[in-house]
Amino acid sequence: MAASRDPAQLVEALRGGDRGALARALSLVERGGQPARDVGALAWPLGGTSYTVGVTGAPGAGKSTLTSRLITTIRAAETEVAVLAIDPSSPFSGGAILGDRVRMQDHALDAGVFIRSTATRGHLGGLALSTPQSLRVLDAAGFPWVVVETVGVGQVEVEVAAAADTTVVVVNPGWGDSVQANKAGLLEIADVFVINKADRPGVAEARSDLRTMLELSNLDHDAWLPPIVATVAETGEGVDELWAAIGEHRARLEGDGGLSERRSARLVDELRQIVVHSLEDRAYGLTTGEGFDGLVAEVEARRLDPYAAAAKIIAE
Amino acid sequence: MAASRDPAQLVEALRGGDRGALARALSLVERGGQPARDVGALAWPLGGTSYTVGVTGAPGAGKSTLTSRLITTIRAAETEVAVLAIDPSSPFSGGAILGDRVRMQDHALDAGVFIRSTATRGHLGGLALSTPQSLRVLDAAGFPWVVVETVGVGQVEVEVAAAADTTVVVVNPGWGDSVQANKAGLLEIADVFVINKADRPGVAEARSDLRTMLELSNLDHDAWLPPIVATVAETGEGVDELWAAIGEHRARLEGDGGLSERRSARLVDELRQIVVHSLEDRAYGLTTGEGFDGLVAEVEARRLDPYAAAAKIIAE
Repeated sequence: MAASRDPAQLVEALRGGDRGALARALSLVERGGQPARDVGALAWPLGGTSYTVGVTGAPGAGKSTLTSRLITTIRAAETEVAVLAIDPSSPFSGGAILGDRVRMQDHALDAGVFIRSTATRGHLGGLALSTPQSLRVLDAAGFPWVVVETVGVGQVEVEVAAAADTTVVVVNPGWGDSVQANKAGLLEIADVFVINKADRPGVAEARSDLRTMLELSNLDHDAWLPPIVATVAETGEGVDELWAAIGEHRARLEGDGGLSERRSARLVDELRQIVVHSLEDRAYGLTTGEGFDGLVAEVEARRLDPYAAAAKIIAE
Repeated sequence: MAASRDPAQLVEALRGGDRGALARALSLVERGGQPARDVGALAWPLGGTSYTVGVTGAPGAGKSTLTSRLITTIRAAETEVAVLAIDPSSPFSGGAILGDRVRMQDHALDAGVFIRSTATRGHLGGLALSTPQSLRVLDAAGFPWVVVETVGVGQVEVEVAAAADTTVVVVNPGWGDSVQANKAGLLEIADVFVINKADRPGVAEARSDLRTMLELSNLDHDAWLPPIVATVAETGEGVDELWAAIGEHRARLEGDGGLSERRSARLVDELRQIVVHSLEDRAYGLTTGEGFDGLVAEVEARRLDPYAAAAKIIAE
């Protein structure tokens, strides 16, 4: 089959298991614009069966190695899995720079695993808008499990990580790491904590730090207390426990209606962001042309402050 | 003087050198809303003399130690300096967790240095909107130099780092670090590169990597080729060269009109973002209420895709 770029043909082909078509559909989605919306609109009615797991944490926490091990565990259940890596520090993103990380590319030989990397670059809001569309396409392609790996630094990235069914936050042993996770807003979004590199000293302290901070932050989390799993991703130690913890969280969400609530809230968020993005385009129209240039000159002369200028633009 | 929260009194006091008033004005700005806009509007006509230096790079690159050394160098010229740290991994942000980093707090005893830390949390766009207002307040307070330290991971954070007069990107020696800087979009925003921790092996390779990537990316940068400075921030080695490189970039920008062009472009960007933010509030109004709930239900039933629903909302 020729490498079609027609959204309808692509969606039909990716439904049939054509991985090339899937990759091309994802490229369209990432690029934005009308073709992206067409792909998303075609994929939407076909989805609803994927369960998404977000894996996030600071660069160097071992997210990719852990994700790789998780893939192995998921595959052992003979279930297909897709990975969406939106982490500039991830070896999945084309940067397998250390010898010991290259083995993660092994999954590339497994037809039951699909790995997609996205750069974190792009316009403001780009990642927040394209990620749900990408997940929609992977959902339509029939993957029962989708793992989204994002770096847990940065406003948009943390929000994207939080927009999963189960969000796994990875920290390392040692005083300070969990404090930084707290500062970056990761504590609030965690459904499951992983203390990775647990062969290093400080696991007990990290565990007690996390517990203390959870208590202090007095989070509700629908009364779900995020379990804390110790892993050594390099050897695979603890990954079965992580998989079990994800399963427990999923069972809990499915049991008490939390899953549909969560997905509904996510959809509302997305709708708001789409509306904002459309209005942004309008804002771009409002902030070009002669009248706008005159206003900028007024601001530059410090006769008008930027917010007063913006109010004038909107009033018009 | 009582701890006034009145914007006019605060701005008057901070102009007179009251550091407590300055801190309170910055708190208002970070919190957003009308008081923030009032402080910004009052500060705007009083500014125009600050020069801002952005320092960014991956967590662990040594940005804070380098910033601390830079402060010492700037202070040697008997010039006042303010630091705005918006990096969750920065010890300036209240996380001085390693003994050897605590010495940076020494500057706290120097009345010519003002250090302000901001958490990177907050709503989407929060950092992008509050940072220019904070810089405006520091400008009005009369600081000739303002250093903005941000972590170079995350869309918003990289954009904030790019919104300086001179942007310094910090990498470390070793193959891969400059590749990751490239992936995170840092290469495009650098006016000056620093290879910090240059006492480690791999400095020559890092230098040649950066050169190659600069050539490959074929950036224009107004024909300014970013210089590459090797430093050991721990000992202060190379910091004078960095300071000289910043001075050269500044002289270049001031000489060829680039500075006012750059500031004008930044102002236009900010105006657009303010307009977008105002429209966002409107979007929130559009995405509440009964009609919206009905639309969400249609989307959840997969009879309507999210973009079609958003188009309906906007059409109304």
